Amino acid sequence: MSLPEPAGLDGPGSDFLAEIHGQPMALRVLLEHESEYSRVAAAARDRGAITVRMVGHGSSDNASSYGVYAFGLLPRWTALRDSITLTAYYDAGLDMRGCTVIGLSQSGRTRDVVDYVARARSAGAFTVALTNDVGSDLAGASEAVLPLAAGPERSVAASKTYLNQIAALGLFAASAATEGRRFAEGIRATADLLEGALPVLEEQARVVALSFASVGRMFVVGRGIEFATAREIALKLLETCRVAAEPLTATALAHGPVAALDPLFPVWTIASDDQTLPAVVEAAERVRAAGATLVASGDAAASLPGAAYALPVPRPPEPLLSPLLSVVPGQLFASALARARGLDADRPVGLSKVTLAR
Amino acid sequence: MSLPEPAGLDGPGSDFLAEIHGQPMALRVLLEHESEYSRVAAAARDRGAITVRMVGHGSSDNASSYGVYAFGLLPRWTALRDSITLTAYYDAGLDMRGCTVIGLSQSGRTRDVVDYVARARSAGAFTVALTNDVGSDLAGASEAVLPLAAGPERSVAASKTYLNQIAALGLFAASAATEGRRFAEGIRATADLLEGALPVLEEQARVVALSFASVGRMFVVGRGIEFATAREIALKLLETCRVAAEPLTATALAHGPVAALDPLFPVWTIASDDQTLPAVVEAAERVRAAGATLVASGDAAASLPGAAYALPVPRPPEPLLSPLLSVVPGQLFASALARARGLDADRPVGLSKVTLAR
Repeated sequence: MSLPEPAGLDGPGSDFLAEIHGQPMALRVLLEHESEYSRVAAAARDRGAITVRMVGHGSSDNASSYGVYAFGLLPRWTALRDSITLTAYYDAGLDMRGCTVIGLSQSGRTRDVVDYVARARSAGAFTVALTNDVGSDLAGASEAVLPLAAGPERSVAASKTYLNQIAALGLFAASAATEGRRFAEGIRATADLLEGALPVLEEQARVVALSFASVGRMFVVGRGIEFATAREIALKLLETCRVAAEPLTATALAHGPVAALDPLFPVWTIASDDQTLPAVVEAAERVRAAGATLVASGDAAASLPGAAYALPVPRPPEPLLSPLLSVVPGQLFASALARARGLDADRPVGLSKVTLAR
Repeated sequence: MSLPEPAGLDGPGSDFLAEIHGQPMALRVLLEHESEYSRVAAAARDRGAITVRMVGHGSSDNASSYGVYAFGLLPRWTALRDSITLTAYYDAGLDMRGCTVIGLSQSGRTRDVVDYVARARSAGAFTVALTNDVGSDLAGASEAVLPLAAGPERSVAASKTYLNQIAALGLFAASAATEGRRFAEGIRATADLLEGALPVLEEQARVVALSFASVGRMFVVGRGIEFATAREIALKLLETCRVAAEPLTATALAHGPVAALDPLFPVWTIASDDQTLPAVVEAAERVRAAGATLVASGDAAASLPGAAYALPVPRPPEPLLSPLLSVVPGQLFASALARARGLDADRPVGLSKVTLAR
């Protein structure tokens, strides 16, 4: 089979693709800040700020879906993607003592996130900025700053920023459970796995993308720690490929959306080898029963029956690290599909790198 | 203009349409249980169980999005749509003392919701079942039971169950703030407004639906208390009309998905007259700048510039009641569109009324 060559260094989408490839290195740079994560997590613990409220938009909000599990499974803290609107628009005046607030913004300039964090600080929360710009407004509004350390991201569609956000939330959560050292080593090992797998993943994603050139809608299904992955892959498909891609949990699929499926409505399913696997397999069976085309991804892709396409990833040292790998085929698929459609993943129409929208 | 006649009492989708029309009455029946809501809310307050964890799937999960605002704005309690997976699959063992857990299930038989509630009770939560079946497994697993009182729902696509769920969460929240009486009167007045508006809303929705017979994808945008509405309308479109409809907050739209829009990708926007209106207007302007067809709904529909279609609703006694009205044009639109497409909204392919999927 003859395939198009990879995009050149200067072509449309070349920044996005280069940044996808830069992810193993970005993870390693994040690990240089391990002691800062340890210090801030200790401060949260000492202060009894053990309810975690995360706020962000787009990829930052997707990463927060991962944080719910990282904080729940490691220090056993309750973590939530908080409503920015409730505090920043409705001025609800919630009591936030006992809370750690994490504001996630690549640029540190997202207006309502900065506003939320300032109000949360007044309401008694321990406020932490997680940002690429430690001199930003968000950093200034927060008591503590954690560097995202992803380096400059030139593509409007985020990749390494997202990966470092989930690694950072995991490292924060692990540090809060005084397991930061072990988790950091797990991130390092996962970065190595990713680096080794990237050439094959890119080639596989490119082949699969060829079949999807005319697809206008998709579901992306993930459960538990992989729901963040489903959300992020769907967002990449929306913003870089103009596919109406909707993220769903395995169970949500069965509660209505499955009725929309047919053979021309493909479903990308992320299966990882953890306690949710039986539910994800059951969802895949429903997808197949509806006749829909199934793309199987994740480190347990081989467990999904009847997949037309498979984009498996390596198994990381522990399940909580799998989202660092399982999002990458989706990024690479979006990159290849955008190119096949003549779209520039670096500069989607109507978007800018720093979103100042309310 | 000549329009198709409404579905007969026995035709496809007739249950769904009849149940939409039954909503004012269902709300009034719920209000007969006001004292039970007052009692359970007092128990939660007395016990200091002021973090609310809501669990449910499909429409029940959509209603929970409303609960975040009802509890945040009335008693100023933190409320979250909790991860069922974290507790029921990963067995994270979170400490749930100080929490009220509300399990939402029309049938009371949703397996993982029942499992979650049983575990939450062991973990110290005050557990409350909100269900149509007060003799169900969910009711049996919970310390307290609140009747949803929506009556039998024969259509697989929920309507009055959803409306009563949001009214019930509002009434619970208001009772927790010792404002139950006032809020109940607001619900009663809103039921009257809805009853008066239904004939016109049905006619308007039917006219708009005629233009959408070939639409395959849509966004539904709402913010704050209307995000629940956006989620529920999108779900109706998915399950009854097979439209790939994705709910988005006004701000999330700007963080990526706006890039997918074009004139053939319509956006349904719910505008209500509260503090979020400027952000929703800004989102509508972006939608129009992308050339997309805009459907304006909500009680501030007239504030949205450049709408091709408008489906306004009356203004309720207080903003927190507006979701009881603003979802109804979406239900009626889905009902009419399903009929225009020859689909049976009562029995979507692949769905059953009681979802036992994991």
